[in-house]
Amino acid sequence: MRRSDVPDVVIRRLPLYLRCLTYMAERNQRVVSSQELGAWVGVSSAQIRKDLSYFGEFGRQGLGYEVAYLRDQLRSILQVDRRWAIVLVGAGALGHALANYRSFESWNFYLSAALDNDPAKYGQPIGDLRVRPMDELSQAVREADVRLAILAVPAEAAQEVAEELVAAGVRAILNYAPMNLVLPPEIHVEYIDPIASLQSATYYL
Amino acid sequence: MRRSDVPDVVIRRLPLYLRCLTYMAERNQRVVSSQELGAWVGVSSAQIRKDLSYFGEFGRQGLGYEVAYLRDQLRSILQVDRRWAIVLVGAGALGHALANYRSFESWNFYLSAALDNDPAKYGQPIGDLRVRPMDELSQAVREADVRLAILAVPAEAAQEVAEELVAAGVRAILNYAPMNLVLPPEIHVEYIDPIASLQSATYYL
Repeated sequence: MRRSDVPDVVIRRLPLYLRCLTYMAERNQRVVSSQELGAWVGVSSAQIRKDLSYFGEFGRQGLGYEVAYLRDQLRSILQVDRRWAIVLVGAGALGHALANYRSFESWNFYLSAALDNDPAKYGQPIGDLRVRPMDELSQAVREADVRLAILAVPAEAAQEVAEELVAAGVRAILNYAPMNLVLPPEIHVEYIDPIASLQSATYYL
Repeated sequence: MRRSDVPDVVIRRLPLYLRCLTYMAERNQRVVSSQELGAWVGVSSAQIRKDLSYFGEFGRQGLGYEVAYLRDQLRSILQVDRRWAIVLVGAGALGHALANYRSFESWNFYLSAALDNDPAKYGQPIGDLRVRPMDELSQAVREADVRLAILAVPAEAAQEVAEELVAAGVRAILNYAPMNLVLPPEIHVEYIDPIASLQSATYYL
C-alpha cells in the first residue's frame, strides 16, 4: 500500500487515535478494545479496525490492541517519532497565540522561526523567539531543515506568502488564513478556519 | 431530504463555496461555472454539482450558476442569513486572539460574552468585552439567545466545561481544546486542533 493510497479521512483520524492511546499509556493502561478506543474518539469499532487495517494487523480478535505498541506504530506511520521544525509566518494576535502554544513541544513540534513583513515588528519577542523579516525566510528554512509552516497572515496575503514558502522548501502548510491556496499537488495543505467551522455548525442548529 | 441526511463532508464544503461566491459577488461577477468554482475551492466540478444537488437545482446546463443567487441560497441553507451570538469560554492567549478576530463580525457572528474561571481575569478587557465569571454562563446564554460556544480552555477542563455549556442551552461547540468531547448526539461539535492537523501533514512528508 502506497502512502498516497490511504484515504485522507483515515489519515485525519489517526492523530485522534494516537492522542487517546498516548493518554491511556500515560495512565499505564496496557490493552484497549476497538470499542473503547472508538467510544473515546467518537467513531465505531468497525471504523477503527478498518482504518488500522490499511497499515497492518495491530490487534488480535477478542484481545484488543496493546496500547503502547499501537501508539508507537501510529507515531511511526504519522512520522511523528521525530521532532519537526516549523516556521510561523505572521506575527499578529494569532501568531502570538500560536507562538505561546505549549502543546507543539509536547507533541514533538517546535517553532524554529517566526517571520513577518512589518518592519515595526522585526526583533520584537514572540513566544521564545524574535520576529524576523520575511527576507530571511529561505535562510530560516535552511537553518532548521524546515518542511512545515504555519500561515497566520491576512487572507489577501495568503496565496503570495504560501508561494514564497514553497519556493523556500516548505512541503506542508497549516493555513489559518480564510483562503483556499492554489499550490502544486505535492504540497500538503491543512486548513484551520473557524468561520467555516461555525458555518458548518449553524447548519445543524 | 432531511438536514441530517446530507453527509457531513458535504456540509463542510458549503462554507468554502459560500466564501468563494461572496468574493465573486463583491467583484460583480454574475455567473460562475462549476469548473471555475471547483478550481477555487480545490474540488472537481462533478463534486460541486453533486454537493449542490442535495439541496436543489441551482444551475442550468452550459450556463453555470448565478453567483448572487447561489450565494444567497447557501446562506439560507447554512442558516447564516442571520446573526449568531457566541459565548467564548477561556480567556487565555487563544481566547484573546479569538476575541480580537475581526472576521466573526464580517460573517454575521459575534461574541456576546467571554468567560473564565480565574478570578484574576474577571473584569479584564478581552476584545470589546470584559471577562465574566463562569457562574454567569447561564445568564450569558439567556441574555443573547446563544446556541454557539467556542471552547478555548485547557484539555483537562474541556469535557466539564462542555457539559456546563450544554446544560446552559448551547447546541453547537467549536472546540479548540485537544480533547474529544463526549456529549449527547444532538449537540454538534466542530474540532479545531492544530496538533492533529500537523500530525496529518507529517504523514505526507
